[in-house]
Amino acid sequence: MDKVLSYIQANRSKFVNDLVELLKFPSISADSKYKNDLLKCADYLKAKFEALGLKAKVYPTAGHPIVYAEYINPANKRTLLVYGHYDVQPVDPLNLWLHPPFEPFIEGETIYARGASDDKGQLLVHILAVEAYLKSGIPLPVNLKFVLEGEEESGPSHLFDFIPQNKELLKADGVVVSDTAMFAKGLPAITYGLRGIAASEIKVIGPNRDLHSGSFGGSIANPITELARLIAKFHDENYRVKIDGFYDDVRELEPWEREMWALLPHTDDGWLKTTGSPAVLGEKSYTTLERVWARPTCEINGIYGGYSGEGGKTIVPSWAGCKVTMRLVPGQRPDDILEKFTKYVHKVASPAVKVEVGNTVGAKPALVERDNFMVKAAVKALEKGFGKKPVFMREGGSIPIVNTFKEELGLETLLLGFCQNDDNVHSPNEKFSLTDFHQGIITAAHLFAEMK
Amino acid sequence: MDKVLSYIQANRSKFVNDLVELLKFPSISADSKYKNDLLKCADYLKAKFEALGLKAKVYPTAGHPIVYAEYINPANKRTLLVYGHYDVQPVDPLNLWLHPPFEPFIEGETIYARGASDDKGQLLVHILAVEAYLKSGIPLPVNLKFVLEGEEESGPSHLFDFIPQNKELLKADGVVVSDTAMFAKGLPAITYGLRGIAASEIKVIGPNRDLHSGSFGGSIANPITELARLIAKFHDENYRVKIDGFYDDVRELEPWEREMWALLPHTDDGWLKTTGSPAVLGEKSYTTLERVWARPTCEINGIYGGYSGEGGKTIVPSWAGCKVTMRLVPGQRPDDILEKFTKYVHKVASPAVKVEVGNTVGAKPALVERDNFMVKAAVKALEKGFGKKPVFMREGGSIPIVNTFKEELGLETLLLGFCQNDDNVHSPNEKFSLTDFHQGIITAAHLFAEMK
Repeated sequence: MDKVLSYIQANRSKFVNDLVELLKFPSISADSKYKNDLLKCADYLKAKFEALGLKAKVYPTAGHPIVYAEYINPANKRTLLVYGHYDVQPVDPLNLWLHPPFEPFIEGETIYARGASDDKGQLLVHILAVEAYLKSGIPLPVNLKFVLEGEEESGPSHLFDFIPQNKELLKADGVVVSDTAMFAKGLPAITYGLRGIAASEIKVIGPNRDLHSGSFGGSIANPITELARLIAKFHDENYRVKIDGFYDDVRELEPWEREMWALLPHTDDGWLKTTGSPAVLGEKSYTTLERVWARPTCEINGIYGGYSGEGGKTIVPSWAGCKVTMRLVPGQRPDDILEKFTKYVHKVASPAVKVEVGNTVGAKPALVERDNFMVKAAVKALEKGFGKKPVFMREGGSIPIVNTFKEELGLETLLLGFCQNDDNVHSPNEKFSLTDFHQGIITAAHLFAEMK
Repeated sequence: MDKVLSYIQANRSKFVNDLVELLKFPSISADSKYKNDLLKCADYLKAKFEALGLKAKVYPTAGHPIVYAEYINPANKRTLLVYGHYDVQPVDPLNLWLHPPFEPFIEGETIYARGASDDKGQLLVHILAVEAYLKSGIPLPVNLKFVLEGEEESGPSHLFDFIPQNKELLKADGVVVSDTAMFAKGLPAITYGLRGIAASEIKVIGPNRDLHSGSFGGSIANPITELARLIAKFHDENYRVKIDGFYDDVRELEPWEREMWALLPHTDDGWLKTTGSPAVLGEKSYTTLERVWARPTCEINGIYGGYSGEGGKTIVPSWAGCKVTMRLVPGQRPDDILEKFTKYVHKVASPAVKVEVGNTVGAKPALVERDNFMVKAAVKALEKGFGKKPVFMREGGSIPIVNTFKEELGLETLLLGFCQNDDNVHSPNEKFSLTDFHQGIITAAHLFAEMK
C-alpha cells in the first residue's frame, strides 16, 4: 500500500494533466453536433484503460457509446462495478463563463471546466487509483468492472437497456458511483438516499390569436393570469404541495436521521451565501437539509407566454405555458405522482381556458443500504483519504441508474462523492478542487484495499 | 352634393387603387430600419394633398415626420382638425400572414394588408372625400387641417410636443379622428369614451444563478412560483382587481349607458367566435361590453423566466419577470394607478425574493361630448353613409392624443370609426372592408357638408 500511496504522491501533477486532457473533450451529449467528440472521448478512455493493462471495449448504442473495462484476478474475493459518465451538461449561458468551458483553467487549487466535477473528475479518480496500483507493480486487491456512459446528462440513456442485456458481463458484488458531493469542504460523506423526479409541461390556451388588450381585455380569460393562478395553487401558505394525495406514500424521516442531520455543520447563512438567495423558504416544520434531501417538491423550471421583447405589447396572449419537475422521495412513484398532478391541474384550472398537460419522464427515488461491505470499506477509506470520518447524508438530486442496478443486477450502490455542492455543477464556471481530486484518489486506493 | 356623391361612385375602384398604393409603404414606426419608408410615406401624403390644391408640409421630428395640410376658405364658418396616423404596427409573427403584409391582397370586398384599417384606410377616407369635392369643382364647405403622424404605434410620439408648440397653426373648432371601429357590420357608431393605460414590468429575483433543482429545490424560493403567486393576487375570485384603492376614482357607469348598451345587438356567443376564446370571463356584475368599454383591467401581456426550450432543464431559475398593462377608465389617473400598483406589488410579494417594479408609460382615459356640432353632423352623415342611425358606444383601447387636443387646444374630439372589431388590428391578416371604406368616404363627404 505504501508503494501505491507513494505513486499517488509522486504523480500528483501528472494526474492533474490527465484530468486536463479528459476535460478538453467537449462531450455535450444533448447536442448532436458533438456526437463525434463523445466518440473520441470514449476511445480516449478505452485507450487509457488498455494502457494500464485492462481489457476494454467501446459499445456503440443508438446514442452515445458505453465504455466498458475490466480487471479480473481470480484470486480476488470481490468484484466492484464502477459507474460514471463522461458526457457533460450544455455550457450556455456561455457569456457567464470566466474561461472557455473546454479549456481547463487552474487557479490555485481549483480547476475550472465543464465536467470538472460532474462527472469526469470523479470518474477519473477511480481510474487513477487503478493506475497507482498497477504502475507500482501491485496487483489490484479487488476485481473492477468499469461502466462509463455518455448519455447521463441528456437521456433517454441506452444504459437502461444495456444493463439487462449484459447481466453476465456486469456480474459483481456491488456498485460504486462517484457522482455526488461531500457534505462540505474537508468533511467527506456517504450518500444513502436520492430523490426521484417526475416532469410535466402545462399549456394554457385562451383566444385563438394574440388579441388587442384594449379591445378585448377584461372580457375573456388571460392565459398568463390563469396559468399564474394555477401555479399559485401548487403550494399552500406553508409551502406544502397541495396536489391531492401527493404525500400519501411519502416515507417520513426517521427520528435518528433528523437527529444526525441536525448535528451537521450546516447553517442557513452559509446556504444563502452558496445560492445567493435572499432567504430560505420551504415546507414548514422541516429544516433546509431535510427539505432538500428528504421532502418532495413541485418546482417550475420555466415559464413563457405573450410578449417578452423590449418595451411593451398591449395584448391578451393566445396561450402560456410552463415546465414543471417534481422531486420525489422514497415511497413516491413517478407514474402515480404524474397521474395525481394531471388530475389536480385539470381540477383546479379555470374552465375559461383550455389546459393541456404533457407528462414526460420519471425516475424513482432511491434509498441504499447504510451498512454493508462497501459502506464499511468506504468509511475506513474516507477516514484515511480525508482524515475525517464521513457523515451519512442524502442528496436532493436523482441518479436513476441506481434503481436499475438494484432491480436488474440485484446490486447495492455505494454513493461516494468527492465534489462540493458549490462546484457549479450544471452552471457556468463548473469547478473541482484539486485537493479533493487528490484525496479522492487516495480514498479510492484505500477503498479497493478495504474490499479484500 | 350630388356631384360629390357621383364622383365618389364613379371613382370607387380608383379609390381602391389609392388605398393599395398607400398600404404598400412598410411604415413600421417601431423598427428603425423602416425610417426611410416612413419618410417616403409622409412625402407621398404631402404630394397627394398638394395634387388636390391643399397647402401641405412635412414637419421633421426627432422621430418620424408629421404631415400637415390645410384647406382654408375664409367664407367657411367652421374649421375641423383631422387627425390620423400613417405608421403601422410590426408584422410579426409573419408566418401567420396568408399574404405578404405590404402587398395588399383583395378578396371579394375585403382588402388585406398591415395598416388597412389601422389607420391608413381610415385616414384616407377623409382625403378622398376632399378629393370628391375639389375634383368635382365644389368648394369644401368646412375648413380642414390635417395632422397625420408617424409615431402612434411606437411612441413616445413627438406630436405631444408639436401640438403645444403649434397652437396657432392648429386652431380649429373640433377634431375628427377615424381610428376606432363601428359597432358591427352595417351598424355605425360614435365612440364617446376611451380607456387609458398604465404599463409596468415586474422582475422577481431569487438565487444569483440558475440552480440545480435537485440540490437546492425545496429550500429556497422559486422566482417563477413567487411571480405566479403575486399575479394570482391581482384579481379576486370575481375578477375584481385587488390593488388597494384601484377603484377609488372610477366613474361608475350611468344607468342610461347600461340600458343603451344592453339594447345593442351583442351576443357573448358572437364574442367567442370573434376571439376564439373558450369562455367569457371578467369582473362580476358587468356585461361583456361594460367590461371592455367601461371597466379597468390589470392584464399580463407577457411572462418569462427559466428554461423555455425543447425538453426540460432541472433548474430553480435565478429570476422571472412579466409585463403588465392596466386599462383605465374615466376618473382614474395613470400616475396614481402606477403608484398604487407598485405599492401593492411590494406589499403582497414574498419576502423570500427581491422584487423590482419598473413603470413606463401612461395615457389618461377620455370621455368626449355626446352632443355638439360635430356629433350632430356625424349622426346625420352616418345615417346617409350607412343607411342607419349610429349607436353611441365606448372603446376599450386608448387614443392618448385625444386628451392632448382637449388640454392644449381646448378641442373636443369626434371619434368616428369605419372598421370592424374583427379586422385583426395589431394581428396578422389585418383587413378592411371595401364597402366600409366606400361608405366611409360618403359619410365624410356628408360630415363636411353638415358642418356648415
